[in-house]
Amino acid sequence: MESREINEYLETLGRKAAFAKTALQKLTTEQKDHALKSAASALVKEKDSLLAANEKDYQRARAAGMAEGLLDRLRLTPERIEAMAEGLLQIAALQDPVGDVIEAFDRPNGLHIEKVRVPMGVIGIIYEARPNVTADAFGLCFKTGNAVILKGGSDACLSNQAITETIRTALMQEGIDGAAIQLIEHNDREVTTAFMKLKEYVDVLIPRGGAGLIRSVVENSTIPVIETGTGNCHIYIDEAADPEKVIPIVLNAKTQRIGVCNACESLLVHEKIADRILPALGEALTAKQVEIRGDETVRANIPGAGPATEEDYATEYLDLIISAKTVSSVEEAIIHINRYNTGHSDAIITEDKAHAEQFLQEVDAACVYVNASTRFTDGFEFGFGAEIGISTQKLHARGPMGLRELTSYKYQITGGGQIRP
Amino acid sequence: MESREINEYLETLGRKAAFAKTALQKLTTEQKDHALKSAASALVKEKDSLLAANEKDYQRARAAGMAEGLLDRLRLTPERIEAMAEGLLQIAALQDPVGDVIEAFDRPNGLHIEKVRVPMGVIGIIYEARPNVTADAFGLCFKTGNAVILKGGSDACLSNQAITETIRTALMQEGIDGAAIQLIEHNDREVTTAFMKLKEYVDVLIPRGGAGLIRSVVENSTIPVIETGTGNCHIYIDEAADPEKVIPIVLNAKTQRIGVCNACESLLVHEKIADRILPALGEALTAKQVEIRGDETVRANIPGAGPATEEDYATEYLDLIISAKTVSSVEEAIIHINRYNTGHSDAIITEDKAHAEQFLQEVDAACVYVNASTRFTDGFEFGFGAEIGISTQKLHARGPMGLRELTSYKYQITGGGQIRP
Repeated sequence: MESREINEYLETLGRKAAFAKTALQKLTTEQKDHALKSAASALVKEKDSLLAANEKDYQRARAAGMAEGLLDRLRLTPERIEAMAEGLLQIAALQDPVGDVIEAFDRPNGLHIEKVRVPMGVIGIIYEARPNVTADAFGLCFKTGNAVILKGGSDACLSNQAITETIRTALMQEGIDGAAIQLIEHNDREVTTAFMKLKEYVDVLIPRGGAGLIRSVVENSTIPVIETGTGNCHIYIDEAADPEKVIPIVLNAKTQRIGVCNACESLLVHEKIADRILPALGEALTAKQVEIRGDETVRANIPGAGPATEEDYATEYLDLIISAKTVSSVEEAIIHINRYNTGHSDAIITEDKAHAEQFLQEVDAACVYVNASTRFTDGFEFGFGAEIGISTQKLHARGPMGLRELTSYKYQITGGGQIRP
Repeated sequence: MESREINEYLETLGRKAAFAKTALQKLTTEQKDHALKSAASALVKEKDSLLAANEKDYQRARAAGMAEGLLDRLRLTPERIEAMAEGLLQIAALQDPVGDVIEAFDRPNGLHIEKVRVPMGVIGIIYEARPNVTADAFGLCFKTGNAVILKGGSDACLSNQAITETIRTALMQEGIDGAAIQLIEHNDREVTTAFMKLKEYVDVLIPRGGAGLIRSVVENSTIPVIETGTGNCHIYIDEAADPEKVIPIVLNAKTQRIGVCNACESLLVHEKIADRILPALGEALTAKQVEIRGDETVRANIPGAGPATEEDYATEYLDLIISAKTVSSVEEAIIHINRYNTGHSDAIITEDKAHAEQFLQEVDAACVYVNASTRFTDGFEFGFGAEIGISTQKLHARGPMGLRELTSYKYQITGGGQIRP
């Protein structure tokens, strides 16, 4: 596509979204929930055509030599389609945050000011392989009164198209503007890059995917971005750790699911407790096929451990590997963590209240834990009932993002003729 | 400067800020307030050297032919230095939002989660002529536990340097890291552009200045940005307007101060009330030297009015000019406003509750008013006691930004050994 064509294409999407957002903001919660339920039913009803579209994506990706793990992510099954529909029903059941009065106050001059929660407007989401994100992202944006423009992975393009069309048809049958959900159907990289600059129409851009995708969005976007997803998460085993808690928490955080952003990637161990903790911990990790890369003390206490480099400490493995380092104090642990973490989730295991408090205060991350697994950093585990991603930036939202994080606010001010003196 | 030198220079600033932020986050409110008071005293004590530095900036700018209005902004006087110091004392007297527990809740598995207000970390501020912004921005960032890196206008460079050094010395005498305030002292455009990409060290970037500066920051920054300042603000005079309120509100919003972002730039008038309202309103505006550019109905009712173009409706004049248009309904007014406004402040004058409500709901702006001047969009007028700017974006903060808007939050989670099933 030529750049003029790209601009016209995106401009059209943007105009449609702007038109749709105005209508969406006027929908009642009941209307939105009803539409979400209709979209859920439509996905189940159109199961065969969704599976057929996905089969084409799958065969093309397989022929192109896609790895098994990615092929599995790409795959739709009847159960996965049911789960997508179930996801929309769950979103319909959540409380609608739009319209909430966050604060209300009166000024001495008689002005009454209300800070009211409102939709963002238009949300752009750029994501990778899984086609179920299409329905999920739509559901969260729609419930909060936002129009959404999606750019999915090119490998899943037919699946995404089929899901989008199914939802759009369901919406239109409810009398709702189908442009509430739009999909960018061109897979040229230039289109995606130009989309990141569609600032006139898009209020926020959320990338969901690997570090490369996120970097590209941050570098190219002129739209405000919420960065999600990279997690070099630490567990610090304090001198005052309860040894009974160490192995369960570390194993859970490292091995319960290895490819996720809230998995533990690095261990810190107080030197005074190293010889009491590390041998058994090393054995437990090794039994779970985890490769350990540590400093000298770690290697002296865990026979199979290899050496760790600076790069290891900075790496989010997303794999059965963990780095480990001994430290001489909680302060040293905090300094190490603040140097190498990605602002996602870090934990301390300790029975010492002062150490726990210091760790909570001084570790710079979205979620800081005392005596619990980092795997709890999740919108569902936090009780938000939904999750669009985990923010690792400090602007707007930090940590798990649910419905509220997809909203903004406005001030509504009522007076009786006040002017500024 | 070569690009390698620029990078080294900024890297050094960034590292110092990162070091300072860790220390700042540990200061108590009392320590911060005491330091703010010391900085205020120091500014007054160093008055002569600040005036001498400013005199050099002033003479250089004058010789270079700077316009009178800008020269006035650049000028420091003993009174303005007193006002800067007074500003720091006012900030010291405000409540410290850092450490506030925004929410606290328990999960069924026993995890206790607290959402706690924390500093952003490092804030970058890029601004134009006025040297008083240097002290003001420092005060707001410092009170909220943030390190600040400032890039002021090159015309004020000696003044900014003198103010920064005075504050830094005062901080160090309090035992506080002087890198809590740093000033970029190179005026090459390449340095400013590279600063906008210092993402590793800077958590948020706030431009304060004209539309050109803001556009440049949005286009170049990889750091999350808060857009501030452009205001194409509207007043819609509804069919059900109380005529007694019209002239005071419009005159106040248009003429009380013309160069500010919350001044009114465009009028909409219901066609049914146009012939009753416009002649007297036109006279009142003309008496204040305001040039009126309107559609046919406006011109028929205001003898001196000229024609308005599409461009007029889109223009933030910041001058004694106002555009005016007649509309046939509140809906038409809302559509016009949502097309041309900049998401800043818009007002309706009406005694009709339904129209007022519809306007409050449907106008897409940070601040929407019923029967009051748009000039109230201001952190002080809202009772925040401070203002770093007016956000016109929807991410993070919208409208007047006080201390709270310079903070983020973190989740502190306390458990007793919980792991994720």
